Amino acid sequence: MKADIITIGDEILIGQTLDTNSAWIGNELESNGIHVNQITSISDSSDHIISCLSNSLENVDFVFITGGLGPTKDDITKKTLCDFFEDELVLNQEVLAKITHYFAERGRTVNDYTKLQAFVPSRCQVITNHKGTAPGMWFDYNGKVIVSMPGVPHEMKNMMLFVINELKRKYNLLEIVHKTVYTRGVIESVLAETIAEWEEALPKEIKLAYLPSISCLMLRLSVRGTDKLFLENLIDKNIQSLKPLLGKYYSPVQKRLSEEVVAELLFQKKATISTAESCTGGNIAKMLTSISGSSSYFLGSLVAYSTQVKKEMLNISPELISTYGVVSEEVVCEMALSSKKIFNSDYAVATSGLASNEDLDGVKGGTICFAVATPNEVFSQTVVFNTSRQENIQRASNKVLNYLISLF
Amino acid sequence: MKADIITIGDEILIGQTLDTNSAWIGNELESNGIHVNQITSISDSSDHIISCLSNSLENVDFVFITGGLGPTKDDITKKTLCDFFEDELVLNQEVLAKITHYFAERGRTVNDYTKLQAFVPSRCQVITNHKGTAPGMWFDYNGKVIVSMPGVPHEMKNMMLFVINELKRKYNLLEIVHKTVYTRGVIESVLAETIAEWEEALPKEIKLAYLPSISCLMLRLSVRGTDKLFLENLIDKNIQSLKPLLGKYYSPVQKRLSEEVVAELLFQKKATISTAESCTGGNIAKMLTSISGSSSYFLGSLVAYSTQVKKEMLNISPELISTYGVVSEEVVCEMALSSKKIFNSDYAVATSGLASNEDLDGVKGGTICFAVATPNEVFSQTVVFNTSRQENIQRASNKVLNYLISLF
Repeated sequence: MKADIITIGDEILIGQTLDTNSAWIGNELESNGIHVNQITSISDSSDHIISCLSNSLENVDFVFITGGLGPTKDDITKKTLCDFFEDELVLNQEVLAKITHYFAERGRTVNDYTKLQAFVPSRCQVITNHKGTAPGMWFDYNGKVIVSMPGVPHEMKNMMLFVINELKRKYNLLEIVHKTVYTRGVIESVLAETIAEWEEALPKEIKLAYLPSISCLMLRLSVRGTDKLFLENLIDKNIQSLKPLLGKYYSPVQKRLSEEVVAELLFQKKATISTAESCTGGNIAKMLTSISGSSSYFLGSLVAYSTQVKKEMLNISPELISTYGVVSEEVVCEMALSSKKIFNSDYAVATSGLASNEDLDGVKGGTICFAVATPNEVFSQTVVFNTSRQENIQRASNKVLNYLISLF
Repeated sequence: MKADIITIGDEILIGQTLDTNSAWIGNELESNGIHVNQITSISDSSDHIISCLSNSLENVDFVFITGGLGPTKDDITKKTLCDFFEDELVLNQEVLAKITHYFAERGRTVNDYTKLQAFVPSRCQVITNHKGTAPGMWFDYNGKVIVSMPGVPHEMKNMMLFVINELKRKYNLLEIVHKTVYTRGVIESVLAETIAEWEEALPKEIKLAYLPSISCLMLRLSVRGTDKLFLENLIDKNIQSLKPLLGKYYSPVQKRLSEEVVAELLFQKKATISTAESCTGGNIAKMLTSISGSSSYFLGSLVAYSTQVKKEMLNISPELISTYGVVSEEVVCEMALSSKKIFNSDYAVATSGLASNEDLDGVKGGTICFAVATPNEVFSQTVVFNTSRQENIQRASNKVLNYLISLF
């Protein structure tokens, strides 16, 4: 079974809104055996919606549409679909009651704009919106399924739970098995050379993809067929023969995000961590606490942005700072040790540097010094980035966590 | 002039990689008067690449392609384009020299996989990759332009600078003027009702879009034509008549991100801020320090994740915690006041709550208490979110900053 995803909204085309919905839907569909053929973003224009939908209906079995269901005039998806299916909009009392209740709970009354949302094409199946007001719509059309959902991510995601269950119930979906191998500390061309023979010998039904990311380099193996167990065994066998070739590049915890790996390793060791951050401004703490259950290993962080705070709260000696400069490995080592001490943690990481690319006080822009204190030692490194301010911060944070991972 | 954007890579379709390139390119194109007609994501399949490209060449003047230019076997874009244009791949000595130099700088030697990147279609114009190894390609074809670039964001962005300049030099681009009005503290349907008459009276050449985001609700006015000054005046006139209708919803600083508004307001007042964060885990500090120049107003943050740290480093009395619970407005008020004191800042914000949706110790999951200490007072609120852990944290952080904005 194949699907297309269509996202509707000028804001996506002009880059004012990032389309995160399609990636999420794509992942859901693929893991349920529905192959995603194409993702298309188009404007709020009925002609374009219709041409795009018609094109998809020629190529795939299911079409998932998001966006353009809001209460305002630029939202035309519902009307357009209604015309396309030669249907008419009727007031759905159940939807109206839900919207009225939704508003009442929030101490608001339903105005005419909101009431418009309770009108739906007469022959569609309404998909209840448990997280907002605009209803979703399911259309059966010449043996194919077209689903239209709001563009608000958590409303759409909630509806998709229902949609996926319905599709599973009604269709005999083909199995797709993806497995990903996570590597760290290696670049794409070196990895390709390392595993060239293995890659050459891969069964042709297995598709291999190299997926570089800021935190790791992934190898994804995919295969599709009818017998899930057979497919899984086939992939597992090839992963088994790959592992020894990867050596130290094979990530000790097979997870994508560096913070997930750190979390798992700390959890295994029953160890704790704290951070003392200057240029990363709390981003490492934010990453570590993005993991559910982080309170079992993360104790706290001191974001010491000003030099004053570094001196007073982290007890970094003014002499050290004046001798080596605030952006130095000497200072970050002290920061990491101090963090370990004041939070009473087993591990600590520290950063100091220039997040922006402008040079300052003789230090090159993008220079970031970091240190990792382990239970017995302290290590440090200096790196220089040259992307945007925010990307420099993100890259530095990942670098610190990956360095920490290599020390476990 | 119209353009399509095509991103190539299975990883996007199955949701393993978020397509941020298209949004960025879309924004660049629109602000340079090139209307984006469609964004399409397809797999690394030559048939699909060719059908998609052919379709785009029927509808638009320019096609921007990203992805599939890496050194590994799953990257087939270059070969496919070469076949489509009935050309052949030739070794480009200049590109090879650049790649060799790029690797030498990093202490590496060029292997066969990397050398493949120096082969380009004989008739394309090479776009130099200043940030990596895979060259970009510019094809002139029947009066249209097709540009192929790597999918790595910072490599692509750097190439686009050159591409946009070339397009400007060669084509007479139509002007597009977008202006955005930022509102805060109002939902879409209420805003629509508030400005209904104004919207009805808008000149039909102006397109209005409501763009809700986590930090604000934007109204975007767009118009296209030949006379930029005329278009700007037309939009400005209509924004002038809109402003008084918006009243308190009109954001005091016309910027999108809450942290940008906070930065601007603190900067205007020459005031400083610090944070004491529990459940937001450093995310508010991270947001505040994502702004260039933040060291002039942001002093530091204490991420007090464990109760012990709250007691010892923020001096929150154990009695207060045992009486009201660690997730309480009483405790966050003390945390904010303590943060203001220890960092010696003019303002401080504090959070305590449950980022995940699981209930704990009688507190409902997603409950977040926060406080804002101003130079003379302290205010607090409790909110309950019900999305994912990370989205709860992000929403709470925005809520805190928007509350702070409302107090200025």
